[in-house]
Amino acid sequence: MSTGNISLDILLDELKDSILAGNSPDESVRAIKKRFPSVADKEAKDIYALVAGAIKIVPKENVSLVLTAPAGFSLKAKTTKNTVESLLEGATKSILITGYSLSDYFKDMVDLIINKSQKGVFVKFYVNHIENQGTFDKLCRYKGRFLKIYNYPKAEDAMAALHAKVISVDGEKTLITSANLSYHGQQGNIEMGTVIDSKVMAKQVDDVFTQLVFKKVFVEV
Amino acid sequence: MSTGNISLDILLDELKDSILAGNSPDESVRAIKKRFPSVADKEAKDIYALVAGAIKIVPKENVSLVLTAPAGFSLKAKTTKNTVESLLEGATKSILITGYSLSDYFKDMVDLIINKSQKGVFVKFYVNHIENQGTFDKLCRYKGRFLKIYNYPKAEDAMAALHAKVISVDGEKTLITSANLSYHGQQGNIEMGTVIDSKVMAKQVDDVFTQLVFKKVFVEV
Repeated sequence: MSTGNISLDILLDELKDSILAGNSPDESVRAIKKRFPSVADKEAKDIYALVAGAIKIVPKENVSLVLTAPAGFSLKAKTTKNTVESLLEGATKSILITGYSLSDYFKDMVDLIINKSQKGVFVKFYVNHIENQGTFDKLCRYKGRFLKIYNYPKAEDAMAALHAKVISVDGEKTLITSANLSYHGQQGNIEMGTVIDSKVMAKQVDDVFTQLVFKKVFVEV
Repeated sequence: MSTGNISLDILLDELKDSILAGNSPDESVRAIKKRFPSVADKEAKDIYALVAGAIKIVPKENVSLVLTAPAGFSLKAKTTKNTVESLLEGATKSILITGYSLSDYFKDMVDLIINKSQKGVFVKFYVNHIENQGTFDKLCRYKGRFLKIYNYPKAEDAMAALHAKVISVDGEKTLITSANLSYHGQQGNIEMGTVIDSKVMAKQVDDVFTQLVFKKVFVEV
């Protein structure tokens, strides 16, 4: 937020606090006149309005709702299916993806993921109880430098699972949802998630899984 | 973003586009001098710096990661359990909540929800296949003006489910997660979600469920 000038920074800070608190402009206008002695009252008010308008510029919303809902149900929200496909298709550097339940329905996307890894996109696929999921056989055949598979093995608590449903792409966009990689998750159920456009969030998600590997909660296949 | 004055709006728009595009300030400073003829060059540059600083004020991050992870696994993220409890405990006006799978583990929270509704907090509980979930019996006994229960009944596609896991409170904060209202969802599994502080998002989520009721996808119990 720095303006590069201390007295301006102080003024901006004062204006910001007052504007965000919804205070009357009078004091702020006086502060502006003090900083800019040559400006007239009317101009000071206009400068105030300009700064207030600038502070209230709403940044591009960086989180969107993602829905699976009955066919024919139209809403101003992204669909899970389109979001998953466009994230995976758009990946140019990396894909982090979890599979609690991966069905044959998702086989085209598995081919896409394999294809991406062969073009140098670095894929990390975190899987729940891979020993029970035959749908991962093909993926496992292609594992290698750019396609890492990590398993969440059965533990003492046999009910415990990798239940998170996450796709994070290029360290930028992250889908966090209730929807599995299955027909019902992508189309048949009612599911909700968010897609977040944030490097901070993408890094946080990546860090979580990296730590879980480090702590041997996941085991590389 | 309106300043309440058309010529100021035009100026702010011009400044915004130039500042966000990272252009040189020269043209913007000229535009400021044109709008404020009495200000000196130096002052015009300062007004530019003030507006640029105001535009770059980063709003409070409105989306946070929410995690269920193995005990002893410490991360800079909120836990699902704490988030669910603080959302429900903090509710003063309304609660929207979904139950795909509600276990006895959650019975204290059910009591809290009933208690809230008796104090005038408007609760809407969306439930998957209530006929199969005995854990909802108590809740159903308390249904009334401030506690509405909506069921997602079995359909032709017997596998289709209300699988979304959502808690939205006071039209302001919304948790969207993979975690069910069960021990494993809240503590035993690896789960991920986001909590979003946004009236826009809360309204969007509420609208989705209202429309699903309107279209008879849900039936009031």
